[in-house]
Amino acid sequence: MTSPFTAETFESAIPHATAARAKAVVDRAHDRGMSLASAESCTGGMLAALLTDIRGRSHVFECGFVSYSDRAKTDLLGVDAAILATDGAVSKAAAIAMATGALDRSRADIAVSITGFAGPGAPDDEEGLVHFACVVRDGRCNHREEHFGPIGRPGVRIAALDVALAMLDEVLSL
Amino acid sequence: MTSPFTAETFESAIPHATAARAKAVVDRAHDRGMSLASAESCTGGMLAALLTDIRGRSHVFECGFVSYSDRAKTDLLGVDAAILATDGAVSKAAAIAMATGALDRSRADIAVSITGFAGPGAPDDEEGLVHFACVVRDGRCNHREEHFGPIGRPGVRIAALDVALAMLDEVLSL
Repeated sequence: MTSPFTAETFESAIPHATAARAKAVVDRAHDRGMSLASAESCTGGMLAALLTDIRGRSHVFECGFVSYSDRAKTDLLGVDAAILATDGAVSKAAAIAMATGALDRSRADIAVSITGFAGPGAPDDEEGLVHFACVVRDGRCNHREEHFGPIGRPGVRIAALDVALAMLDEVLSL
Repeated sequence: MTSPFTAETFESAIPHATAARAKAVVDRAHDRGMSLASAESCTGGMLAALLTDIRGRSHVFECGFVSYSDRAKTDLLGVDAAILATDGAVSKAAAIAMATGALDRSRADIAVSITGFAGPGAPDDEEGLVHFACVVRDGRCNHREEHFGPIGRPGVRIAALDVALAMLDEVLSL
């Protein structure tokens, strides 16, 4: 669907290719009768917004959690504070705990998580480092780690959406 | 921040004016030392994405819930199923219950909810009808009902963001 706004007024826009990927994922989930949940940190709800922007497919998206702060990761998703203290909020363990938490707290069949440094942040934070996990109620659990580099906040957020969508597509294709 | 993408590749874009409103709200919440939570239905996480897209202000946004389905509204936010059955998911009672649920389930100081028919949906759904609630931990509770009309999904979603941001701005200004 084309936006009614002119180019000059845009911000935080989603490329058509990313939106098309989201539609393909939702269509495939619909065809397979599977529902989705999201647990987002650095993308802040953009994945949920994409997955709910498809007409006639609102039943596919079960729910989304935006756990931007460490506290929200523990409060909302039950991520163990020890993981955040030891591995950090941007880590494989945190990503898996976030996705698992989303699955435990919803009736979705598949949950995907995104946690990363969109940057710029603290000096020790590697700008563009993002961890992802995709867990399925049948026990499958995939993890990915991406180093997008200092490509700017919008760039990292969009790149992260593309990876999360690819992971959903992968588990839906098997 | 300007997006790195060219106009032809955009989708689901946010007008600059809306993004500027979000930045003003986040700056004001930061100045007042107050944190925010969101409970979104028809906007599907767009408000959370906006409120987390501001550099150096990540502490302001506590967490977000995307409760697109009725089940998610009860599971995630504790909305009474009787409200959904009697008043419907797009109602004053549902909006207040969603915002209250977000506040109860987080440590945020202010929670705002959005629930509406972005359309097109079932024949009985009034396209463009959106209910909002903004609740503050000090007991304040504001409700708004908007009839945006059949202006299309992107239009309703953007218009809803603007109202939610105006409500946040209002409670932060008092």
